[in-house]
Amino acid sequence: MALRVGVVGGGQLARMMIAPAVELGVELRVLAEEAGMSASLAATAVGDYRDADTVLAFARDVDVVTFDHEHVPQDVLAALVDAGVAVHPGPAALRFAQDKLLMRARLQELGMPQPDWAAVSNTDELQAFIDDHGGRAVVKTPRGGYDGKGVRVVSAATEADDWFAALAEDARGGALLAEELVDFSRELAQQVARRPSGAVRAYPVVETVQRDGVCAEVIAPAPHAAERLQRVASTIGVGIADGLGVTGMLAVELFETTDERLLVNELAMRPHNSGHWSQDGAITSQFEQHLRAVLDLPLGDADPVAEWSVMVNILGGPAADSLDARFAAAMTEHPAAKVHTYGKAPRPGRKVGHVNVAGSDLDEVAYQARAAASFFVD
Amino acid sequence: MALRVGVVGGGQLARMMIAPAVELGVELRVLAEEAGMSASLAATAVGDYRDADTVLAFARDVDVVTFDHEHVPQDVLAALVDAGVAVHPGPAALRFAQDKLLMRARLQELGMPQPDWAAVSNTDELQAFIDDHGGRAVVKTPRGGYDGKGVRVVSAATEADDWFAALAEDARGGALLAEELVDFSRELAQQVARRPSGAVRAYPVVETVQRDGVCAEVIAPAPHAAERLQRVASTIGVGIADGLGVTGMLAVELFETTDERLLVNELAMRPHNSGHWSQDGAITSQFEQHLRAVLDLPLGDADPVAEWSVMVNILGGPAADSLDARFAAAMTEHPAAKVHTYGKAPRPGRKVGHVNVAGSDLDEVAYQARAAASFFVD
Repeated sequence: MALRVGVVGGGQLARMMIAPAVELGVELRVLAEEAGMSASLAATAVGDYRDADTVLAFARDVDVVTFDHEHVPQDVLAALVDAGVAVHPGPAALRFAQDKLLMRARLQELGMPQPDWAAVSNTDELQAFIDDHGGRAVVKTPRGGYDGKGVRVVSAATEADDWFAALAEDARGGALLAEELVDFSRELAQQVARRPSGAVRAYPVVETVQRDGVCAEVIAPAPHAAERLQRVASTIGVGIADGLGVTGMLAVELFETTDERLLVNELAMRPHNSGHWSQDGAITSQFEQHLRAVLDLPLGDADPVAEWSVMVNILGGPAADSLDARFAAAMTEHPAAKVHTYGKAPRPGRKVGHVNVAGSDLDEVAYQARAAASFFVD
Repeated sequence: MALRVGVVGGGQLARMMIAPAVELGVELRVLAEEAGMSASLAATAVGDYRDADTVLAFARDVDVVTFDHEHVPQDVLAALVDAGVAVHPGPAALRFAQDKLLMRARLQELGMPQPDWAAVSNTDELQAFIDDHGGRAVVKTPRGGYDGKGVRVVSAATEADDWFAALAEDARGGALLAEELVDFSRELAQQVARRPSGAVRAYPVVETVQRDGVCAEVIAPAPHAAERLQRVASTIGVGIADGLGVTGMLAVELFETTDERLLVNELAMRPHNSGHWSQDGAITSQFEQHLRAVLDLPLGDADPVAEWSVMVNILGGPAADSLDARFAAAMTEHPAAKVHTYGKAPRPGRKVGHVNVAGSDLDEVAYQARAAASFFVD
């Protein structure tokens, strides 16, 4: 009997688990938010992940429940655990991905390097934080943000008035997260896989390039990364995976500062855009690794298969029917490019796919990946 | 709207097209022989591929029909073509994969190097062939053989009496194929992808190791292959693809003789066991390449990603529920091994999966692949 993994959420991360699931002989089941989503091939159910009965019914026939995103509410997660369902990552770990204030506090307990931060409950407290940090700060809503949403750089506390007003009406109450605006030279990401039994595998640290708050490009491994930096990044990643009890894939987004320190920016407890390169550039892709980890199977080798891999996101243009023609053009000019599509209707700025290229010459690899992806941009 | 490929046959070759189809954004539909086969995730229909109405109904909603095997009868193929269905490979090419006598005659016309052969209609003709070739010959049934079935090495014509008797009762009549028993030093395979528009891509020639007439192991590229040998193999592969009008993947099984010639042994017009290494060892796997070729999309780069790849077949043991435990043991000891499973109940000698390993040291790569696969053998 095949092992069965249930994925809550039908987006591209669930979709990209299909390929390794087929090869591993794992039966993948997906609870999609609606019909026709990215992972529809494996979608065995459609329903609301915020409804405990829906998720419990979905979970009944699988060996483990995992996630395409971190938004399943804690009460639903608790209901799963109470019903004896194996949930990876578990509620205790997911709390820290769901609430950035909890995350900051826990990382501080663990002694992890991070930007200065504070929980600010009102305009005065935020203004005081801004004044203490050179007149600027990053303000974040602790819950619900992604891809740059829920994040603002402010120089006056009044710029967050709407968020304070929303907090006042939120029954959960709470505070906003204020962070030091870090003077970083670049952004990195460290991925780690961790089994429930505790074994971990760290991927090479990668460089991520963001545009408008959205990941645009990833270079693996991070160029010019001294051995010390690689070791520190890996130690941070493993330390957070262990310290937070993460199971499955963990991505730690890092700032590399101009004075060569690494500071933790964000966490994701699932396969992550910074690891898409691994589909074509690593012995074990992050999607296969996630399945192995949540099933508590032995982890695969996380080493690269080529000296360099570059991933470039395809941010969809307006026309829904133009992907095929663009595809053919990109494939003609760039036969070494691996195009991955998400089965999503393109619209401006939406991630609809990505291109991976691997090879021994970084300039050439990056050129091929960017040029192939450029066919999909208007 | 996604391009739709219909695959006739629900075996492991169709199954292994699922992963690249998902990533390419191609909708894969499979006409399986029965429920619960290897490719069941994509099985949209179950029915008899020998029935024209069944196959026509299946073909109605796809952009191209292709195959998991070469056994679809010519009258069914003709009905598809008459109905305006794109069929790749087409009937004219598939004839040569379906009838080894036709293949030998056509390869002779093309000037391809092959063993001495003859069509033998009775015991006397076969005995004459045996006498002319040192007292031994290989006898083959022209139709329906695979994995060593329908092939016998004989030293007396009477050893094929049962096949002659069967021929006499077959309405299609015909003859058996007698071939010279080649004094080969090893077996090789050359794969070529060809688009309907004529573009081709050749994979590196590989060494195949057979046990009991079944492919046991593949080493890519073939060790100690001089540039001349690689060039000759590629020329033979491309020449056959062009000469027979093959579309999709073609595999040419070759004998390398002790006097350093290459002779064509068998052909397969579909992804082939000799190309499974490409899933983890080439930029474009044969399964992705087959989809691209039959859709007449630009072909991908067929270069290896590592210096060496080794594929070892898993020939299943008796217990149906032991795969998972073996899997975990193999994964623990061999984290660089990529295990591919076919979702088939194991029984002695049945191909139920394979292991790929890629890397720079052939001895190590071969050791890892063989050792990982050995976990699945009793």
